[in-house]
Order: sequence, then structure tokens, then C-alpha cells
Amino acid sequence: MKIVIVGASGTIGSAVSTLLASLHEIVRVGHRQGDARVDMTDSASIAALFDATGPFDALVVASGNLAFGPLAQLSDEQWQFGLESKLMGQIKLTRAAIPYLREGGSITLTSGIVSEVPIQGGASATTINGAIEHFAKAAACELPKGLRINVVSPTLLTESREAYGPFFPGFESVPAARVALAYQRAVMGVQSGQVFKVFD
Amino acid sequence: MKIVIVGASGTIGSAVSTLLASLHEIVRVGHRQGDARVDMTDSASIAALFDATGPFDALVVASGNLAFGPLAQLSDEQWQFGLESKLMGQIKLTRAAIPYLREGGSITLTSGIVSEVPIQGGASATTINGAIEHFAKAAACELPKGLRINVVSPTLLTESREAYGPFFPGFESVPAARVALAYQRAVMGVQSGQVFKVFD
Repeated sequence: MKIVIVGASGTIGSAVSTLLASLHEIVRVGHRQGDARVDMTDSASIAALFDATGPFDALVVASGNLAFGPLAQLSDEQWQFGLESKLMGQIKLTRAAIPYLREGGSITLTSGIVSEVPIQGGASATTINGAIEHFAKAAACELPKGLRINVVSPTLLTESREAYGPFFPGFESVPAARVALAYQRAVMGVQSGQVFKVFD
Repeated sequence: MKIVIVGASGTIGSAVSTLLASLHEIVRVGHRQGDARVDMTDSASIAALFDATGPFDALVVASGNLAFGPLAQLSDEQWQFGLESKLMGQIKLTRAAIPYLREGGSITLTSGIVSEVPIQGGASATTINGAIEHFAKAAACELPKGLRINVVSPTLLTESREAYGPFFPGFESVPAARVALAYQRAVMGVQSGQVFKVFD
């Protein structure tokens, strides 16, 4: 199976790459490094990416940014940042990948526990992660060629506890290697339109 | 209670206005008609609206547009249309209303059954309506002054069956007067961060 992983150098993306590389051909994609480059906010850059990769069997997106801040102070620009990157970036990658995905292939996107569990300053994160989960539910009903689409929703990563732990008081963390299993289930399984939660 | 209703001339907004007007002061707001005008995609227009209304007790938003179309063909512009209008329009109205809402007041936004039940060509609608529901869940945790926020999710309106029925095959419709009750529950009740579904 040929698997394109966007965000392959990130904490999650590299764990997914490591897990899947023993049995599959991995195309590691990053913003500044990897086998190929992409700016996921730019449709032309995305088109160039898939033109370079050619046909493949699975797309994994473990990338996308958004802004945190108090509800009353989150600016239009901070909202727009997340809408363009984590939400529309993943939607644009999905739309552009369809013609390149082989029959029975799959798309796996990334949300996060904040879609379900609000945190201080996380209104934009809850909104955008929730939007991604709803997008996958709808897209699953319209995809051609037997394509599947799912979302992995990780909680705080053990590897990120030092950087992000203060925003997640009392949250159990999970190692990226465990989160990677959810991506493997999404890529190799049979379900579609689902959210694979890596928490609870 | 002084209640500001954005979209007051629409099918839902006028039913809500009629229901609440017997006991409350209603400020009817529209894009082109009403006691006051607003372009909900424009932060300056929203600021001018609340400057004109002054303090109030409840904001109801029954307005906001989005685009329909096949997943593979929905353009960036069509996605952006819904993100700017139905999603960020409601979020901007919420953020701007906070300083004007009196202690214990409320905000009631509008999503739709498509957040939960995908329909043909509705990927953007599912995404954006779902995003609104997630936004309210997060915002409920951060609002000051004991403010509450909820979302009403109506199914197909009986009054809109002729125009939109073909997009909702086999869906039961409900009259706008019944949908209006959910807004009354949201405005006059005690819950926050909830989705009041008017279907099932």
C-alpha cells in the first residue's frame, strides 16, 4: 500500500510513519522537510503535491494549526488562522486527493480531544476540531470509488506534556505510538465516517 | 426582557418574534429590514448594531447562509461563503454581544439537522452546522456574567417544504411555530452549552 502522510515529521506523523513503514511504502510530506513538501493552506501547493506523488492508496493528515485564546479576545485573524489551516487545509487535501486515491483507498484526518472536552481558551479548537469530525461524517456519504474517510481524535500526547500540559490540567496523556495505532485502524480497517478517539 | 433577534424577518425568526413578543420587548434585526440592520459577516456592522440597541437580555440568531454542492465540486469560495456567514457570522455576533448582555442573559444560535444527518451535497452544511454546535459547547464554559449559550437545530420547516423538500427526501418537516418553542426554551430556560434538536 502506498500511503501519503502529511505532517510526517511531527510527533504523531512520525509515529504513524514508523508504525506503517514496515509493511507499506510511505511518502513523508512536510511543510519544510520530507519526501515532498506542501503548504496545506494553498490549493496550488496541494495540487502540485499530488501531481508529484501520483496515485496512492491512503492519505493521512497529521497536520494543521489553530489559535488559542480567551473567547472574548480571540480575534478574527486568530479564528481565520485555524479555519484556513486545520479545517480547510484538511478539507482541501481531502478534495484534491480523491482523483489520486485508488479504488477502496482511504483518507484519515486529525481532530483532537478538545472537540469533545472544552479547555480554557479553546473555543476555536473545539469549534474547528468538531467541524473536522462532522466533515468526515458527511464526506463518507459522498466519496466515490469505495473510498473511506475517518478522523483520529487524540488526547494530550505524552511527548507534548511539557509544552502543552498546563493547558490540559488533569488530562491523562497517551504516547504517540498508541495514537499511531488508531491511524493504522483507520487506514487498514473497513469503517468510514467514524471518529477514532484515543482517550477514555 | 429585551430580546435582539437577528434574522427576524425569516421564517424561523418571525415565528420566534411572534411567540416572544407578547411578553417581551423584541428588537427585530435584518440584513435589509427591521428595527435595526446588520451585515453579520462584517464586524464593524455588528459593532454598530449593538451600539444602537444598547444593553439587552437575550440574543437570538436565526440567520446565516452556506453553500450546497457535491463534495468534489464545492469550491474554496463556496466553503468560504458558509464559514464567513453561518459560522463566523454567528461567532462574531456572540463575541460582540457579550459586553451588551445583562447579567444572566443568553445567546441562542442556529444550526440544523444536517449537522447530524448528512444529505446529498451537504458536506459544507454538515461541517458548519456541526462547528456551531461545538462552538456553543466551548463558549458556554467561558462566558462571563452568568451568560448562557445554546443552539437550536431545526429539521426541514413545513413552510420551506416546497423550496427545500427535494434536498430532504423522506424527512418529516416541522412548522416554524414548533421550532420557535425551542428558541423560547433556550432563552427562558436554565441550560447552557446544549443543542435543542427539533427533530426525532
